[in-house]
Amino acid sequence: MPHNRAGKVLLNCDMGEGHGVWQMGQDEQLMPFIDCANIACGFHAGDPGVMRTTLTLAKKYGVEVGAHPGYPDLQGFGRRKMQLSATELRDCLHYQLATLCGMAKVVGTQVTYVKPHGAMYNQMMQDDSIMQVIMAAVADYPESLELMIQATNQYSEHAEIAKKYNLTLRSEAFSDRAYMDNGQLVPRSQQGAVLAKDAAIKQCHSILQQGQVGSVSGNTLSLQVDSICIHGDTPDALAIVQGIRNKR
Amino acid sequence: MPHNRAGKVLLNCDMGEGHGVWQMGQDEQLMPFIDCANIACGFHAGDPGVMRTTLTLAKKYGVEVGAHPGYPDLQGFGRRKMQLSATELRDCLHYQLATLCGMAKVVGTQVTYVKPHGAMYNQMMQDDSIMQVIMAAVADYPESLELMIQATNQYSEHAEIAKKYNLTLRSEAFSDRAYMDNGQLVPRSQQGAVLAKDAAIKQCHSILQQGQVGSVSGNTLSLQVDSICIHGDTPDALAIVQGIRNKR
Amino acid sequence: MPHNRAGKVLLNCDMGEGHGVWQMGQDEQLMPFIDCANIACGFHAGDPGVMRTTLTLAKKYGVEVGAHPGYPDLQGFGRRKMQLSATELRDCLHYQLATLCGMAKVVGTQVTYVKPHGAMYNQMMQDDSIMQVIMAAVADYPESLELMIQATNQYSEHAEIAKKYNLTLRSEAFSDRAYMDNGQLVPRSQQGAVLAKDAAIKQCHSILQQGQVGSVSGNTLSLQVDSICIHGDTPDALAIVQGIRNKR
Amino acid sequence: MPHNRAGKVLLNCDMGEGHGVWQMGQDEQLMPFIDCANIACGFHAGDPGVMRTTLTLAKKYGVEVGAHPGYPDLQGFGRRKMQLSATELRDCLHYQLATLCGMAKVVGTQVTYVKPHGAMYNQMMQDDSIMQVIMAAVADYPESLELMIQATNQYSEHAEIAKKYNLTLRSEAFSDRAYMDNGQLVPRSQQGAVLAKDAAIKQCHSILQQGQVGSVSGNTLSLQVDSICIHGDTPDALAIVQGIRNKR
Repeated sequence: MPHNRAGKVLLNCDMGEGHGVWQMGQDEQLMPFIDCANIACGFHAGDPGVMRTTLTLAKKYGVEVGAHPGYPDLQGFGRRKMQLSATELRDCLHYQLATLCGMAKVVGTQVTYVKPHGAMYNQMMQDDSIMQVIMAAVADYPESLELMIQATNQYSEHAEIAKKYNLTLRSEAFSDRAYMDNGQLVPRSQQGAVLAKDAAIKQCHSILQQGQVGSVSGNTLSLQVDSICIHGDTPDALAIVQGIRNKR
Repeated sequence: MPHNRAGKVLLNCDMGEGHGVWQMGQDEQLMPFIDCANIACGFHAGDPGVMRTTLTLAKKYGVEVGAHPGYPDLQGFGRRKMQLSATELRDCLHYQLATLCGMAKVVGTQVTYVKPHGAMYNQMMQDDSIMQVIMAAVADYPESLELMIQATNQYSEHAEIAKKYNLTLRSEAFSDRAYMDNGQLVPRSQQGAVLAKDAAIKQCHSILQQGQVGSVSGNTLSLQVDSICIHGDTPDALAIVQGIRNKR
Repeated sequence: MPHNRAGKVLLNCDMGEGHGVWQMGQDEQLMPFIDCANIACGFHAGDPGVMRTTLTLAKKYGVEVGAHPGYPDLQGFGRRKMQLSATELRDCLHYQLATLCGMAKVVGTQVTYVKPHGAMYNQMMQDDSIMQVIMAAVADYPESLELMIQATNQYSEHAEIAKKYNLTLRSEAFSDRAYMDNGQLVPRSQQGAVLAKDAAIKQCHSILQQGQVGSVSGNTLSLQVDSICIHGDTPDALAIVQGIRNKR
Repeated sequence: MPHNRAGKVLLNCDMGEGHGVWQMGQDEQLMPFIDCANIACGFHAGDPGVMRTTLTLAKKYGVEVGAHPGYPDLQGFGRRKMQLSATELRDCLHYQLATLCGMAKVVGTQVTYVKPHGAMYNQMMQDDSIMQVIMAAVADYPESLELMIQATNQYSEHAEIAKKYNLTLRSEAFSDRAYMDNGQLVPRSQQGAVLAKDAAIKQCHSILQQGQVGSVSGNTLSLQVDSICIHGDTPDALAIVQGIRNKR
């Protein structure tokens, strides 16, 4: 399994989310510490120049590249729910996968997986019919791509569906988000939803070393986690990856 | 030479230039009569759905697909000159080539050549430094793509430059534009610049059968022509292709 | 009441919904027959040139101008539901109202009402909290603007809410849509949802002359109707307005 | 003269140049120190939310508001030359003026002048025909707006032209750019083109106190300067304004 090199849980981070003159995140600082870069494809963020720069940076550090497609909503950064038809969603995904896969070849690297962004990711996790459209679109794309989704208690059901599409899944947990006993994230509206730096590092260590995510009430969750998501746009991101990983 | 099947001059037409709900041209009517479809890539026209529909239509009629990249200017349909840096132009091309090449694979066809659109095409023909950036970008793209440019008296010089990039050129003449003795088009500002239907059909026949373009003063030009461009957004387009070609 | 000149029910039509080179509807043909033009503001359709042209056309025929704001979604023509925050929706409205009001002054006319477009209109009619955000935004705008909404059985409740904002409402019925006994439209998924030309003309006459909308089961609905919406992008639009109105 | 309160040279700064989640500059830090905010109108930067926020901030500190329109080129931040027709340029200006003027009224302030952005500014200073289109568009706008242009040796000629349009001009010098003896800026390609912090503060003091701009060769230029432009996106911007102005 390339995404879990010898059973190792991998660090993934959203990257290439600037646009034109506008910067986002700390791609150059973080890239040496992570395993997988989810690179924006131009719809919610990114543009031709940003994509090339980010792909080149990923290649330099031997970081695996994932496509990070979003809704066509630059102004809202792909964070606003949009109701696309199944056909529109499929086409919108294929367009973005095509763009990043092609640009990756231009710089001499390749895309190996897909992780939807923002509202598209959330709607995928909340609505099975949307997840199936996404699964079908990724499976139908004429390159071998895996799909990264959130690690939840429904993971085995999702894996069942994915099997129908001959699609390999990856599951991710969040480095800096607190978990409830049911395996869901503590909503951002509640206190303690976002972990401070030290708690985030501790949560990462627990996942990396024992393969375990703990809940806020102190229980151990039975989530299968292939990858940990680092939120690159938070100030602590660098401290967190430095706390758990050596630079390449 | 795939673009000149056994010495045959091919008909090309810009296609897929709608956007969202907005239509352009007569793609469905024209596709059965042409050989090569220059398909817009989303920057001056086209979108994920339009691209898939147009690629599918091209495949249905066995029509060869070219990428038709333009400047990022939907409002101006890519017809307004823009001054991109060499890096911006290259990235803007690679992005659009990637998108169409990938989408073509999704529907089971492939892109074999590139023809820049509108202001980008005009600037390429007027400025050798821009032509070289475009040549380099097409040559560097990791699929085998030819470049379609205008048939002019400078064609052999352009071919010399293309050779440096290991790039194969195609030259096109225009079905409905009058030519001056120097091989340039009569400017649109002058009377007689655009040929009426019958004159256009006659010009096409002359190119297709004798391989010759005539000038307004009655001379025969020594232009090498691999392809004839049909302007799909003019009312006579269908009559012209019907006048010179059988439906597939 | 300017929108109901001496009790007269007015005809309104969406206009200015082209973008760049792309056309939509039959603005020039229809403008002489209608009373109110709902003009797109650049987010779902329209652009600076299209707006000026359409405003100028409205002025020429003495047609009242309404702002027709939509979601920022050119590709989807503002027909896809988007979940904007209350703040985003307000700002998105004020931006579009500002644009059209200012451009109207440039050509020497003025905007007197607002009719949301597409998904924004539908979400307004389905969700009172969205309607209130829209009402507040229109009321807060520093020019006197009325709000056009759909004529339904809930109209008096909507008018109550509008009163809180000191906002004057206009209600519209649709010329070519069949009504159910509860005053709602027959869903497009059902047969008979869209009226053919003659039935549409008959429905318009009934509203214009008796002030009455009939349901598919033959009952007379008690809808208050200030205006009738003509769908300008349907082929019958011109025949319908010609069937009920003299040209100016 | 509102733009030169009792002969005082005013500080202007480009503001509101973020877009969606993307930030630009240090608007909150700089606003208390400046007199005039040139606020982006959504084409090269800015969006409905950013515009409202920036207008509100300007109002809070009693800062005069100018419209800062640019080319429709978010990806290129309006810095790439575009060739718009006179009609397109006029409409593109009126649209942006309308938007900012209307949004300004929403927050309870007003727009008093216009300063074109980036490539539009540069093309205006290089091409008199473009300057005349811009002058006419600003003069035709149905609110009283002045036009800010660069202080050069051609200023009196520009003022002559402006008089034809009944347009009041403002001239600006740059705080951190070195000047040649002919009153033009030292090109960025040359060493010393951009002044370091202390030299910039010195240049500002010279303009503010003696009304004089010095050239790199030590001569005093006879430029008329109504306003000094602070580049808000440079790291030294805050130090420069703090060095010459008290906070409000």
